[in-house]
Amino acid sequence: MNTFGTLFRITTFGESHGPGIGVVIDGCPAGLAVVEADIQAALDRRRPGQSDLTTPRKEADRVEIQSGIFQGQTTGTPISLYIRNQDQASHDYSHIEHAYRPSHADYTYDQKYGRRDYRGGGRSSARETAARVAAGAVAQQLLTQHGIRVQSYVSQVGAVAVPVGYEQLDLGLIDSNPVRCPHPETADRMAALIRQTRDRHDTVGGLVTGVVTGVPSGLGEPVFDKLHAELGRAMLGINAVKGFEYGSGFAGTLLFGSEHNDQFYTNDTGQVRTRTNHSGGIQGGISNGQDIYFRVAFKPVATILQPQATINDQGEEITLAGRGRHDPCVLPRAVPIVDAMAQLVLADMLLRARTNRAEWAG
Amino acid sequence: MNTFGTLFRITTFGESHGPGIGVVIDGCPAGLAVVEADIQAALDRRRPGQSDLTTPRKEADRVEIQSGIFQGQTTGTPISLYIRNQDQASHDYSHIEHAYRPSHADYTYDQKYGRRDYRGGGRSSARETAARVAAGAVAQQLLTQHGIRVQSYVSQVGAVAVPVGYEQLDLGLIDSNPVRCPHPETADRMAALIRQTRDRHDTVGGLVTGVVTGVPSGLGEPVFDKLHAELGRAMLGINAVKGFEYGSGFAGTLLFGSEHNDQFYTNDTGQVRTRTNHSGGIQGGISNGQDIYFRVAFKPVATILQPQATINDQGEEITLAGRGRHDPCVLPRAVPIVDAMAQLVLADMLLRARTNRAEWAG
Amino acid sequence: MNTFGTLFRITTFGESHGPGIGVVIDGCPAGLAVVEADIQAALDRRRPGQSDLTTPRKEADRVEIQSGIFQGQTTGTPISLYIRNQDQASHDYSHIEHAYRPSHADYTYDQKYGRRDYRGGGRSSARETAARVAAGAVAQQLLTQHGIRVQSYVSQVGAVAVPVGYEQLDLGLIDSNPVRCPHPETADRMAALIRQTRDRHDTVGGLVTGVVTGVPSGLGEPVFDKLHAELGRAMLGINAVKGFEYGSGFAGTLLFGSEHNDQFYTNDTGQVRTRTNHSGGIQGGISNGQDIYFRVAFKPVATILQPQATINDQGEEITLAGRGRHDPCVLPRAVPIVDAMAQLVLADMLLRARTNRAEWAG
Amino acid sequence: MNTFGTLFRITTFGESHGPGIGVVIDGCPAGLAVVEADIQAALDRRRPGQSDLTTPRKEADRVEIQSGIFQGQTTGTPISLYIRNQDQASHDYSHIEHAYRPSHADYTYDQKYGRRDYRGGGRSSARETAARVAAGAVAQQLLTQHGIRVQSYVSQVGAVAVPVGYEQLDLGLIDSNPVRCPHPETADRMAALIRQTRDRHDTVGGLVTGVVTGVPSGLGEPVFDKLHAELGRAMLGINAVKGFEYGSGFAGTLLFGSEHNDQFYTNDTGQVRTRTNHSGGIQGGISNGQDIYFRVAFKPVATILQPQATINDQGEEITLAGRGRHDPCVLPRAVPIVDAMAQLVLADMLLRARTNRAEWAG
Repeated sequence: MNTFGTLFRITTFGESHGPGIGVVIDGCPAGLAVVEADIQAALDRRRPGQSDLTTPRKEADRVEIQSGIFQGQTTGTPISLYIRNQDQASHDYSHIEHAYRPSHADYTYDQKYGRRDYRGGGRSSARETAARVAAGAVAQQLLTQHGIRVQSYVSQVGAVAVPVGYEQLDLGLIDSNPVRCPHPETADRMAALIRQTRDRHDTVGGLVTGVVTGVPSGLGEPVFDKLHAELGRAMLGINAVKGFEYGSGFAGTLLFGSEHNDQFYTNDTGQVRTRTNHSGGIQGGISNGQDIYFRVAFKPVATILQPQATINDQGEEITLAGRGRHDPCVLPRAVPIVDAMAQLVLADMLLRARTNRAEWAG
Repeated sequence: MNTFGTLFRITTFGESHGPGIGVVIDGCPAGLAVVEADIQAALDRRRPGQSDLTTPRKEADRVEIQSGIFQGQTTGTPISLYIRNQDQASHDYSHIEHAYRPSHADYTYDQKYGRRDYRGGGRSSARETAARVAAGAVAQQLLTQHGIRVQSYVSQVGAVAVPVGYEQLDLGLIDSNPVRCPHPETADRMAALIRQTRDRHDTVGGLVTGVVTGVPSGLGEPVFDKLHAELGRAMLGINAVKGFEYGSGFAGTLLFGSEHNDQFYTNDTGQVRTRTNHSGGIQGGISNGQDIYFRVAFKPVATILQPQATINDQGEEITLAGRGRHDPCVLPRAVPIVDAMAQLVLADMLLRARTNRAEWAG
Repeated sequence: MNTFGTLFRITTFGESHGPGIGVVIDGCPAGLAVVEADIQAALDRRRPGQSDLTTPRKEADRVEIQSGIFQGQTTGTPISLYIRNQDQASHDYSHIEHAYRPSHADYTYDQKYGRRDYRGGGRSSARETAARVAAGAVAQQLLTQHGIRVQSYVSQVGAVAVPVGYEQLDLGLIDSNPVRCPHPETADRMAALIRQTRDRHDTVGGLVTGVVTGVPSGLGEPVFDKLHAELGRAMLGINAVKGFEYGSGFAGTLLFGSEHNDQFYTNDTGQVRTRTNHSGGIQGGISNGQDIYFRVAFKPVATILQPQATINDQGEEITLAGRGRHDPCVLPRAVPIVDAMAQLVLADMLLRARTNRAEWAG
Repeated sequence: MNTFGTLFRITTFGESHGPGIGVVIDGCPAGLAVVEADIQAALDRRRPGQSDLTTPRKEADRVEIQSGIFQGQTTGTPISLYIRNQDQASHDYSHIEHAYRPSHADYTYDQKYGRRDYRGGGRSSARETAARVAAGAVAQQLLTQHGIRVQSYVSQVGAVAVPVGYEQLDLGLIDSNPVRCPHPETADRMAALIRQTRDRHDTVGGLVTGVVTGVPSGLGEPVFDKLHAELGRAMLGINAVKGFEYGSGFAGTLLFGSEHNDQFYTNDTGQVRTRTNHSGGIQGGISNGQDIYFRVAFKPVATILQPQATINDQGEEITLAGRGRHDPCVLPRAVPIVDAMAQLVLADMLLRARTNRAEWAG
């Protein structure tokens, strides 16, 4: 379904070229300060046209609060956020009405539903993620109250990778360049690669690394709703994502147990900590108070401005080329989406943890 | 919660050293033939003591059907499966009653619940996965009716990896060796590594590759419950899993869009197929009829038979060494668990897809 | 939460005096013809100002489709329906900002959330039910495809009751008078009682009887989600409802088993029927193919245009009188709401039943 | 599905004549004292053979705790409770294998699933409610911690009714007689009616009144999961229930608004109270701190020891008479079931309310 979350729960709606897209947030506690400006700031990080590295389409992505906020505070009732689409009638999509674009969802939607809104991908368009970003900004208000911070950044574009781990970076630099990579030298090389790729009418993928600090211990629900399982599901639900790993991840399979185990100790202020953090802040699916970090793999964008062989909905072979203005690389705009999905998971888990113990009474 | 699935839904219960573990399957359609022998066969692939590569513990893991089957068929009512624990009272766990084992869930359970069943890991023990395997065997009966087959195998142990892709392997060989690797030469090298590791009182991780064939197009639910997002969540919910990727996965980030896109064509029998399958059988979160394949990363087992520094529940530094009989490598026994989780996801998605179109009337 | 239904699922949002109210319908199958006019027709039966028996407030309640419909058909994606509020800024609610109106939700919202949108009841206003009526009209499109019809009517106002059962009425007359009672003589007496009550600045309650015809056997889910349990929950969720009974209901407790049991027989066309229908078309929580009928009790409206003693949010005793234009009796406008909730339950149960048998394949 | 509740959630399984029945409780907070004796005491109130007013069948209904309790306390993991069936193989059910018993679920299960376990009603047997009673006893431990008490009693059998409201009764007398009616004189008349009915080989229905005291304000979730809507659904899910009303209920429809409204005042200890309680302790779906009370209508038992005309599964007319030992009146044994369902709803709502306000942190 189009709903995500158990207690802090969102339902998104809308197509790329319908009147607009939106989200209903249910279960947000009462008493959080929420203003449109906070939501708009998050949307502005995702919207097209921010730099020459992304699609030059201009969309304002202006959010409207339709319900759930009174006198600047959440009331405990559903918060509906709406973003009107602009110029949705102005494009001609007849060239893809009957075509199945390679590595898009055209064919599978037709197989599933027997029909589809073919204008700009309809519901399968990444435009839907704007609704998630708006909801994530509301979730962040709850996280802020608990000292939790989510910071994602682009750690790899094609084969150009940040050479150090997140703990050696100044995450305050994430928005200092249009790539959203806090390692300036690597950011420059990534930008160059994106421009070359764009000029070749091609596209390129990469990795986003997510970092969550300030997480209290005890978040995450055994056995199926482990914190990293919910994070993984959230990330894999983002368009173009092909993989997820947390902590030591795939590379951890190369270590022996004696190398991989994180030893506990008590620090100077009496807090329990681990000397290494291969666990990525999560043990047995539950946060242990250390930093949570994870990586998300994005494939190259499927729409390329080159002719490609494919078929139409009659099974006939055709040649198709992308038109219009598209992103050569989604990574810079994916950062706020990764942020949002992590914010939503953590807000949900925060609320779920409130019922863990009988002694934590009403 | 301890429930997985939306329409084909399981709830597991039980601790490592309580009276037993079990599962209730709800939503299984009526009219499937289910006998204990099918379930037992799956459990026998997971149980300890199968070879010298796994723990020598002897547990029969005998399943009992408590409800939901009448005259050999499912009736549409809940199916309860129960597996008694053996000798659960015979061990002494006083040495870990107050200790936090490194990279285990002892500390996080205590932080979350204020208490824990410390005997053998209690609920966080991988023993709980036996209940999932039993349920997966029931799900497979539904899949078999639709021609869907799930086949997982060990594709890497430590740095020893199968050198070819799944499509070049004879998956009929999976159970021909105790490693469950269908590439015999690699299997031998994996077995040697596991034995060396065991003799060093250490543990080793690796990868399981899952392959699903015969999947009809149209399974998977946009936008959050994408087929690969549910598969990923299912796999990340297995003990010791650190990462998940499907199709081209992390390696796909190194390709350009023009290389990565899967071109559609119509084959000789009039079926829509793609020339490559970087999509891993899933586009826009929905199956496209091609093979689904994915990889799951398992960290090395946390329990090692060596002294390790850690703390107790008073925050005091202690030294702890694992005792008893443990797996030096979980990969061979993880194969049926990966199978089961994939079976459960696909059975659920099969049922969910039945309501996609109004023309598919009751 | 603000979500209703399992597979055919709605989420409503909006407050009485915010920008608008709306609903997101998720899980509606693709391929249903849905046009705004069908939805508008249902809303027009609920909106204020239809006759002198209801509030003279004028609200157009104009529905806008925001998503999910393409070329006049559902696409399987979420359907968002939005109704703007009119003149929401024009009223002065300062007299109730700090008052707890008797038998309203002011006090309980404050206790639950620590704050409330006091303008016109905010989220607790019956205005929210317009969103349900809009969604019910979409659900009805699915029901129509299966020959199912829902017809509710006012069967009692105060002590004025229709003297015969539904099967002796011409339900085609429901909308022939402003009371929505298909027994014209009783309708006149009801209308007279409502006018007298209004002129005394008082309010009056009553009963709505719901009738569902054409229901196939097999709908309803044991053991907790029985068809009548879901209908009951749906009706009890409507503002001002105090009771629900189906079939023989409370009166059935006065019969002996030998009188109450419905004997099965096979009719001339070979269909299984029962000679009486005390079961109300539902046995063991599952429809049996007979008519479903039930009764819903509505209390008198809490807002009366008379001074009443109450307290403010400081606990101080005050006197309060209702202002503005209110319904002296909600029953006529409750009929489309009862219809909608029944439509939503039945659409959901239709979809849920599609997975009952393994032989009903994809 | 066979699951009830959102956060305090139960899943029941088992058939009347299978190996046993049981329940898995998920979401119960850690740290509650739970011993088998508490659960057994609740089951003993429901089991057959308690007096000459109920079926003389002897079933021990002995509960076994399979998981979730460690050292006498809940651990936050699933609690599985199991009750073995006795002598399930000893009865001959061939006379009903192909018969559709009047007003039973035989026909509808066959229509829904294409098959059924015909032994003693299978899953549709009221025996399943023993699992609910066991779970209710665990829920009560949470309620006790918050001072909440549920007390139900038989208020009417056939036409014999308790002449006063619950507030004029000594509810401590409920278990002082086998009818479970705290008005001794009426209890005697009820017992006489049940015996007469039994001797005539007939059955009789009646009402159970439920009373919940000590409920804090703020429980219940707008707009669909109103506290009374969840209570109603819970009660309507009990076998043989035909109606539910709370507070003034159906009789409240005869009052005018000026009579029905409950005036707020502040009592001597500074608490907000209402002078009347037509609201039944619930306003806008949320508890207001007053007593909650409701009434549940039970039809007469469908199994009567008299010949009845019906059909078999070939549609042929047959005559059928009940055999064996059945209850002439379920009301006395229904009391603990009503208690249990109310306990489960309140425990769930207690946990759900913990997330209402942002200021109620972690």
